[in-house]
Order: sequence, then C-alpha cells, then structure tokens
Amino acid sequence: MPIVTVKLLEGRSDDQKRQLVEKVTDAVVETTNASPEKVSVIIEEMSPSHFGTGGKRVSDS
Amino acid sequence: MPIVTVKLLEGRSDDQKRQLVEKVTDAVVETTNASPEKVSVIIEEMSPSHFGTGGKRVSDS
Amino acid sequence: MPIVTVKLLEGRSDDQKRQLVEKVTDAVVETTNASPEKVSVIIEEMSPSHFGTGGKRVSDS
Amino acid sequence: MPIVTVKLLEGRSDDQKRQLVEKVTDAVVETTNASPEKVSVIIEEMSPSHFGTGGKRVSDS
Amino acid sequence: MPIVTVKLLEGRSDDQKRQLVEKVTDAVVETTNASPEKVSVIIEEMSPSHFGTGGKRVSDS
Amino acid sequence: MPIVTVKLLEGRSDDQKRQLVEKVTDAVVETTNASPEKVSVIIEEMSPSHFGTGGKRVSDS
Repeated sequence: MPIVTVKLLEGRSDDQKRQLVEKVTDAVVETTNASPEKVSVIIEEMSPSHFGTGGKRVSDS
Repeated sequence: MPIVTVKLLEGRSDDQKRQLVEKVTDAVVETTNASPEKVSVIIEEMSPSHFGTGGKRVSDS
Repeated sequence: MPIVTVKLLEGRSDDQKRQLVEKVTDAVVETTNASPEKVSVIIEEMSPSHFGTGGKRVSDS
Repeated sequence: MPIVTVKLLEGRSDDQKRQLVEKVTDAVVETTNASPEKVSVIIEEMSPSHFGTGGKRVSDS
Repeated sequence: MPIVTVKLLEGRSDDQKRQLVEKVTDAVVETTNASPEKVSVIIEEMSPSHFGTGGKRVSDS
Repeated sequence: MPIVTVKLLEGRSDDQKRQLVEKVTDAVVETTNASPEKVSVIIEEMSPSHFGTGGKRVSDS
C-alpha cells in the first residue's frame, strides 16, 4: 500500500519520469518488503513561479 | 472542517466531476455528522505519464 | 487508481471511520466508474491545536 | 525544514504569488525560528471545476 | 478557499503553533485578498525519524 | 528541490525507515540529476484503521 508522491520542478524528460517511477518503486520495495504491485508513485510537477525557498521563487532567482 | 482530496487519472467528464464532489460530500456528511458547508472537496487529476503502479506508468502499459 | 485523502478533526469513533471509508469508496466508484478494488481511502486526523480557520485554531475557540 | 503548501483557486497575478511566497515565508520564520533558507513554499492552483464546498463546485455556483 | 498545510519538525510550543496559524493566515489574506474566514491552516508535525534531506534523516544526524 | 512523501502502513523498523530515506533519495538523484542535498523525504505512517482499499479498511480485513 505504499503511496509515494514526488514533487519536483517541471522540465524532466518523459524518459527521466519513466525511470523515476521505476527506480523509486524499486527503492521502496527493497527497503519495506512491500510487493511491487502495491506501490504507487505519483509525480507532481511544479512551475518555477509556484515554488520558492527562502521567500524567493525559482522564477525570480 | 473535513477536507477531501481525490487524486485520479484525467479523463472524467465535467458532469462526472460535478457528481463526484456532490456524492463524496454526501458520504462524508452522512458518516461524520459534519455540516455540509464545512466539507471541501478537491479534485486533482493525474496524467498517465505521472502515475504508476508496480514501477510502470499508466502511459507505458 | 483513485486515491482519496480525508483530513478531519480527531474524535470520530472507529465505526464512523469504517463507514466513512466504505461510503466514500462507493461515491467514487459510482461517479467515476473506477473498480472498487482500485480505490484507496486514507483518513488523516487533525488535532484541534493543529487546525484553524480565520487565523484561530479550533483549540483556541 | 518547514514545507508549506498553499492550495488556492487560480486567478491570482504573478505579483500576488511572488508576494504570497515572500510573506508566508516571513510568517513561518517569525513564529517558528526556522532559518529562511530552510523554508519552502509551494503554490498549487485549483480550477473552479475541481473545488467545491457543501457539495457544490465553484464552477457550478 | 485557500488551504495551507505547514509540515515541520515536532518541537514547537503550543504558543508558537497558535501564532503560526495566525500569522500565516494574515500573510495569505494580505497577498491574495481572500476573506480571513475562508483561509484554513493545517499544521502537520514530523518526527526526526520520519524526515531527511540528502538521504539522511534528522534523527541520524 | 524534489520533495518526496512516502505514505505507508505503520510497522516498519527504524532501520527500514533509515534505509527507505537513503535509497529513495538515491533513486531520485540518479533519475532527475538533482543534487542529493536538495532532496527531502518525508515518511507518513498510516494506522490500519485509517487506510482502506475497495471500501474495506486494513483493520477490518
């Protein structure tokens, strides 16, 4: 039942996202003993104008 | 104050989303005794290339 | 694949939570045509000192 | 390490979002003593057809 | 309708959390023109054994 | 800036959680080219009475 959400800035290729889902699933299976088919991974992309650290958005840096 | 988030694959019609918000609210009100006007429902759609189970994205199946 | 998260104030009985998961699942299945076994529901309880509206926490009201 | 997520209806200007990230960060720093550079803020916009209160979506009101 | 979630390490006092909810609400109202009574703030505390950066949990540092 | 949240049923050992944070971070770094120190991982445990699939909670199975 593990449900993994990965929030990251937009800009990764489709191939990177495919591998991200695959490798994160492997990491969860290996360390928690969950069955692979029970692991879900959700990618949520953020726009540079919708994310900031230290009070400053990426789009303003 | 219940806040409900429904993450699901994109592709539902506007009418289905309208009913989803209505029926989920009813279910929460009925089972928790919250007042309807205190229940919020958020729909978050996922692209098939941003969701996977068992390490494989929906877009790769 | 719908994943539903319900955030609500702590204090519901175990029976209410059981029915909440059941009825919310029914509502999602009925309106989105998802298979029941693909619908997951997560309940996240909030303490009155960890939730506020209008700038005032429930525990301070 | 505070991570703040602000979900709100779409429609704010870029300048409002810039200030939102700045002012929310200030509020978190002032009240928790976190270092500013450790505070992240994520803005998540909701469409009026994806958010409802009392069982009715904003787009249906 | 803004819904704000603040995830932070456990250890803040009740008074700090009270002020956090108040000041973050003020910041959202000031920058988005939302009415205060429409702004909700949720605090979610994380244990040092449940949060890490750079692959290392706070509890292991 | 990737922020990863892993929701899973309670019951893993402290050592499993330590490795989970480490290996998931490695998987994100490897596939997205993010610097390790920019990757945060949050573990959120769910009680069997707060999670269900197919309308039935784990605690009722």
